[in-house]
Amino acid sequence: MKRTHHCSQLRKEDSGKTVTLAGWIDRRRDHGGIIFIDLRDKHGITQVVFNPDHDAALHAKADSLRNEWVVSVVGKVRPRPDDMVNPNRATGEIEVLADELTVLNKAETSPLVMNDFTETSREGEDIRFRYRYLDLRRPWVQKNFLLKSRFLAATRRWFENNGFEDIETPVLCKSTPEGARDYLVPSRIHPGEFYALPQSPQTYKQLLMIAGFDRYYQIAKCFRDEDLRADRQPEFTQIDAEMSFVESADVRETFDDYVKTVFNEIWPERMKQVSFPLPTMSWHEAMLKYGSDKPDLRIDWEIADCTDIVKDCGFAVFRNVAASKGVIRGLAARGCVDLTRKAIDDLTAYVGRYGAKGLVWMRVKEGDEVETQVGKFFKTEELNALRDRVGAKAGDMMFFIAADERTAATAMGQLRLEVARQKNLLDPKVMKMLWVIDFPMFEWSDTEKRYMAMHHPFTAPVPEDLHKFAENDLGTMLSQSYDLVLNGVEVGGGSIRIHDPEVQKQAFKALGLSDEEVRAKFGYFVDAFKYGAPPHGGLAFGVDRVVATMEGIESIKDFIAFPKTAAAAGLMEECPSPVDPKQLLEVHISVRQG
Amino acid sequence: MKRTHHCSQLRKEDSGKTVTLAGWIDRRRDHGGIIFIDLRDKHGITQVVFNPDHDAALHAKADSLRNEWVVSVVGKVRPRPDDMVNPNRATGEIEVLADELTVLNKAETSPLVMNDFTETSREGEDIRFRYRYLDLRRPWVQKNFLLKSRFLAATRRWFENNGFEDIETPVLCKSTPEGARDYLVPSRIHPGEFYALPQSPQTYKQLLMIAGFDRYYQIAKCFRDEDLRADRQPEFTQIDAEMSFVESADVRETFDDYVKTVFNEIWPERMKQVSFPLPTMSWHEAMLKYGSDKPDLRIDWEIADCTDIVKDCGFAVFRNVAASKGVIRGLAARGCVDLTRKAIDDLTAYVGRYGAKGLVWMRVKEGDEVETQVGKFFKTEELNALRDRVGAKAGDMMFFIAADERTAATAMGQLRLEVARQKNLLDPKVMKMLWVIDFPMFEWSDTEKRYMAMHHPFTAPVPEDLHKFAENDLGTMLSQSYDLVLNGVEVGGGSIRIHDPEVQKQAFKALGLSDEEVRAKFGYFVDAFKYGAPPHGGLAFGVDRVVATMEGIESIKDFIAFPKTAAAAGLMEECPSPVDPKQLLEVHISVRQG
Repeated sequence: MKRTHHCSQLRKEDSGKTVTLAGWIDRRRDHGGIIFIDLRDKHGITQVVFNPDHDAALHAKADSLRNEWVVSVVGKVRPRPDDMVNPNRATGEIEVLADELTVLNKAETSPLVMNDFTETSREGEDIRFRYRYLDLRRPWVQKNFLLKSRFLAATRRWFENNGFEDIETPVLCKSTPEGARDYLVPSRIHPGEFYALPQSPQTYKQLLMIAGFDRYYQIAKCFRDEDLRADRQPEFTQIDAEMSFVESADVRETFDDYVKTVFNEIWPERMKQVSFPLPTMSWHEAMLKYGSDKPDLRIDWEIADCTDIVKDCGFAVFRNVAASKGVIRGLAARGCVDLTRKAIDDLTAYVGRYGAKGLVWMRVKEGDEVETQVGKFFKTEELNALRDRVGAKAGDMMFFIAADERTAATAMGQLRLEVARQKNLLDPKVMKMLWVIDFPMFEWSDTEKRYMAMHHPFTAPVPEDLHKFAENDLGTMLSQSYDLVLNGVEVGGGSIRIHDPEVQKQAFKALGLSDEEVRAKFGYFVDAFKYGAPPHGGLAFGVDRVVATMEGIESIKDFIAFPKTAAAAGLMEECPSPVDPKQLLEVHISVRQG
Repeated sequence: MKRTHHCSQLRKEDSGKTVTLAGWIDRRRDHGGIIFIDLRDKHGITQVVFNPDHDAALHAKADSLRNEWVVSVVGKVRPRPDDMVNPNRATGEIEVLADELTVLNKAETSPLVMNDFTETSREGEDIRFRYRYLDLRRPWVQKNFLLKSRFLAATRRWFENNGFEDIETPVLCKSTPEGARDYLVPSRIHPGEFYALPQSPQTYKQLLMIAGFDRYYQIAKCFRDEDLRADRQPEFTQIDAEMSFVESADVRETFDDYVKTVFNEIWPERMKQVSFPLPTMSWHEAMLKYGSDKPDLRIDWEIADCTDIVKDCGFAVFRNVAASKGVIRGLAARGCVDLTRKAIDDLTAYVGRYGAKGLVWMRVKEGDEVETQVGKFFKTEELNALRDRVGAKAGDMMFFIAADERTAATAMGQLRLEVARQKNLLDPKVMKMLWVIDFPMFEWSDTEKRYMAMHHPFTAPVPEDLHKFAENDLGTMLSQSYDLVLNGVEVGGGSIRIHDPEVQKQAFKALGLSDEEVRAKFGYFVDAFKYGAPPHGGLAFGVDRVVATMEGIESIKDFIAFPKTAAAAGLMEECPSPVDPKQLLEVHISVRQG
């Protein structure tokens, strides 16, 4: 049974060798009384030939073979006739003439179409995930995992070479109901008490810095019991790192080197477009120009603020929004002058989802003349000023949204992406990376009626804004934070943490947390900072987001061997599931009915 | 703040350089009006000098420094005077004359003794674990984690170089109440249903073989809700691997190379004693000769079966045990002829814990003469035969235990170890490794009144024993299993798995599982084998057991950054803990009172 070669290894130069291969029967053809088998393993496919003239009994035995049976074959390598060479296959110049055949296992007919190389599944997720062990057998599904495995190995090698210690942190943790919802684990030994699965190793990695480990990393499972979107899983894996005695530029410099080294190894072609250091952009600039804190720079369209131009114009919508401290934002959609009324109506509905009550559009015709239904409300100089402000030229369509600043920015940012998608301008082969930095420390929550931490409560403010705590000027405080954005996807982010207990106290106060709440939620953690915490900061990358984005693939499920559905269910294992009542008794809980 | 060097880096050759260091104040001494600071980081310690003649203001500032404060220092390297050189420290030939001092953080007095290099803690686990972030700061605690990090890196490099794919398997799994107790996670989306945390990735890794990944590995968190012993943690990490198209000797050969490569890299000195291939020993031989399935071969004492010699002797205890199908096992404790009556009484009590109802002892005196209190019941030829059977010589003490085979073997094995421990013969610097193979497939459970799987229900029998299913001769069936044993500690193990659905059916039947039970517990898993499962097998190593055993350290907690107590509690985080009733409502459970 022991193989001498794998199924993508043999070449013309191996002709004459006796070899042993093993794998799955990918396809079987009968041609002129001869049986041809495509034998498949992780590496590829080799053609095996059963010729009755060579061995009639063996040929008869091979006649029983069916797709997906597992066999091992001993045979002799020979070159294929010139007209049978398959240039699309690594082993396409040879075949193996079989001398022995062992059926290692039979297979029932697969519920999935196995030897289909169209690289898109004919089956829905329900059947693919139920028979995931078969789905994963398909080369175009399997290749994502071989890639991810290489990416993880390269990642670890980089951390190892850069003095980061690989230290495990617990999965059975304390529940801290701040942020997302925790997964709970009832304790058997402590009735009525619960562990929580970690949303991230955040507090542990900061404690490791306090413990003096200097540089830590971990490829860590994290858990969030949130309602799932397409790009979310209840458990996910992050590359988690923390460093001591650094400022935010040091962290970015260090991880520029990570991206340069590791991404270049795994995606050398795509990375040719990327130069280092990666550019930085402030959160405020990103929100203004791209209407997003994760700008997609594959198109160079920039949003412009036009409030000053139209604040006194004849168009009541613009005038009123400007008067009530709102803004008017404009964008030139390049070459989109011919968008139909229907298309524009659809775009108006689209931005409506992001809170925009309307979408004003203007066409820029030959001679840079602006044409619009609402033209009568504007002076020509105003229209021309708008055109110049958004940088529109003949052939462009201009869009304007008037709303409060956050809504106008976001809706315009989404419009920018949607038009680009419709025009097929977001080329998955183009690669644009940047750091978005200087996020606000706090954002106001209308539901909670208080400021919330934009990152998390341990994020450090920029030193020049520290005085704003005392002045209670929280809305304009910036933090020492940074997100890594690839093609409009936030693949990671982090911050410098607060290491001064006094600053931490002020931050908790700003979040409206009483001393008692701080003690109950973060008691041991806050205590730890009393005993000599070094300045430190770090970040985390979402493994699957990085790999999917670099591969230009939308769903991270394509990189998770056994994913959960949007209802957080494992279709293959049929989990979650009811359990034996004895198990519940042991952990002192009962199911609440109704 | 940016460091130019770490605290174990500067040498005499660096004299004259201006450097920036940062770290913790390990110790501060005042000597002749000069302040000496031992500045500590992960790497080591550098002496920093504040001299009032050099900079009076800086000296005054340094006067406020206390232990464990975090500082950064800019200064000039200079050689120490010859009589001040510290040969025990890498930086012992130099010191840094400080020009600048920045206090990065102050520290309250540590609840732990920090600069104590005795390498044993004065504090108990309760205080060490509560302030683990300080405990971990101590060089003799921290070094275990730096070692473990290097071990993990070397391990991963080996797997990467040997074609193993690193593939993650889920942590939110299905509960299968076979084996140990599961940790449960209530589902929010599916009321009354639960996930379980994995006891191992066993089924997933076998499914990955069915999916054709060929070679898989993962350093995986596993969970068991068992009552904890000293060497157990509720969550633990294993190096988990699986291979396709292999037989058990192939797996052992592969992992001989793993041990040779990785262990040699991390423990080159210790591994000089080990030669490859590692020896194998059958389970039956291990149980007979060493009374254990994890024999400690650091001493060569072998247990011998003496039943045939004494089955008709005048000593009723031996005669009766032999008559009722029991056995008499003997051991020569080398050089222990002088054990006192008190010591022997203690040993008798000790073997009593393992079920032995008594312990017969005989001294071998000068001239190889056997002296014993029960001498009158034996013929001289019988005593001499016993002496020769156990290989005893003048100066040895012989021990005999009569009981059913399992009890006699185990009690004698424990006696062997206990005497060796008392005599200090188990040298932690000696390294003895072996594979124990050919375990029984099944063991009879008196409580369950049925055969149980000795490994797990997916372990393959040796091919020559397959016929025993039909003959219902389960007790003598051997499995294709193997454990790696280091110095009497089982650090890992695995098996060839059943890949033939028919054999799996027979194995389930032997375990008394009905078709319905099989379907409920393993339905999807058994289904998967219908679609072309390759022959496969694998193993798992306990990361912390390996590292602790190689380091000669008893407790795996010394290698877990944030361990749980024997009551499965995190003393630092105070977990498990009560949670907000709203959290329980959301996941449809309530705490059962009383």
